[in-house]
Amino acid sequence: MKKLYVVGIGPGEYESMSIRAQRILSECQVLVGYTVYVELIERYFPGKRLLTTPMRREKERCQLAFQEAEAGNDVALICSGDAGVYGMAGLVLELAGQYPQAEVEIVPGITAASSGAAVLGAPLMHDFAVISLSDLLTPWVKIENRLRAAAQADFAVCIYNPSSKKRADYLARACRILLEYLPEDTVCGAVKNIGREGETSVILSLGKLLEYEADMFTTVFIGNSQTKAIPTAGGKLWMVTPRGYQL
Amino acid sequence: MKKLYVVGIGPGEYESMSIRAQRILSECQVLVGYTVYVELIERYFPGKRLLTTPMRREKERCQLAFQEAEAGNDVALICSGDAGVYGMAGLVLELAGQYPQAEVEIVPGITAASSGAAVLGAPLMHDFAVISLSDLLTPWVKIENRLRAAAQADFAVCIYNPSSKKRADYLARACRILLEYLPEDTVCGAVKNIGREGETSVILSLGKLLEYEADMFTTVFIGNSQTKAIPTAGGKLWMVTPRGYQL
Repeated sequence: MKKLYVVGIGPGEYESMSIRAQRILSECQVLVGYTVYVELIERYFPGKRLLTTPMRREKERCQLAFQEAEAGNDVALICSGDAGVYGMAGLVLELAGQYPQAEVEIVPGITAASSGAAVLGAPLMHDFAVISLSDLLTPWVKIENRLRAAAQADFAVCIYNPSSKKRADYLARACRILLEYLPEDTVCGAVKNIGREGETSVILSLGKLLEYEADMFTTVFIGNSQTKAIPTAGGKLWMVTPRGYQL
Repeated sequence: MKKLYVVGIGPGEYESMSIRAQRILSECQVLVGYTVYVELIERYFPGKRLLTTPMRREKERCQLAFQEAEAGNDVALICSGDAGVYGMAGLVLELAGQYPQAEVEIVPGITAASSGAAVLGAPLMHDFAVISLSDLLTPWVKIENRLRAAAQADFAVCIYNPSSKKRADYLARACRILLEYLPEDTVCGAVKNIGREGETSVILSLGKLLEYEADMFTTVFIGNSQTKAIPTAGGKLWMVTPRGYQL
């Protein structure tokens, strides 16, 4: 039986991939994925059959991958970050019953919550919530409820998909909701293009985050009541949510 | 200036480490960590100076690592999973001001939420909360509030540190709280020894999870209202939280 691997490649740079993901991509004959992600890694895996589909063609992408596996290939369906966090693992497993000849294996990767946190310092050292602001597949009211619940229970929050061209004001909307519960000086951070060309990061207050321009490749971090901005000798700031150790 | 890397090595098996983590551990002269984690990887990095401290000696571990860096070594402080999720990154950055001669870099890894999810299927495909049941450093009432908030807002939940010898009934206590809000047949899962010898997993209802015996090396997943157990041709079940794609 041929295998369909759903592979999280981490934030994008080759070195962020797990050794296992690297081995599996080397061994597969076919790599399938969203165009942008396949382009990030194709030069490291020459001689593969590459199949790409644009954004919003997720179901088609999974079907392509299954068809290639049923045709006798080992196939890797590539996800950025982790395969199981807003990735393709769920849709693949929902469709798997239609392709009994392909065996599915999920290969985890480093998700943006972890890779972005490492750029900023340690904002997710304590309990945290991960929330996507994309309302393509989720009613906004549900997203809003989750923001409210996370703020009320003093979770640190990591926000995926904070903004896009069509949803330019969504991060500001989220900040306004959070500001109903959290002080303006709550320590926040944002990282753009994690582990890719043009990586930038900023540490700022929730009040300032309200005016921050995020894009599709930004991950946003909201601190909890204990989160601090710690200055370093070099003038850089670290965003740190203490776990509670006695210093 | 010498560097102190805080390195997440993933769940434990060598292949789960990122290529970057592997390179950094190869390049460092000194590896520092909790005894169990250092033992997991030391055979892959021969010829290193190894310094270990037992559990609950986290501050001492960080100080040891800084002292080695200030003495002129490149040092890797090893964390299981991700360095920034209940790892050592936060404590290191809180102490960094005392060791201005050492430059700190955080190297992320695959946390148990991702690696455990991949074993079960795709339980964290939608918004989720990560909660530790350890009340060593956190008042139980705060943990309880977070469980309530997560259940009320229909987050999937990933539970770290569900149990230990001294906290044998904590997972059951958490389940009882969740059952105030969630139906007994909510789909849940648990994975023991992720990516290590003796890895086992189970998919079960929240009602059954109440009686499940977790240990220190278990990660627990509570589905949201949409989470399903999908049977495969081979008789295995997958735990899947749909993101909402039209099938």
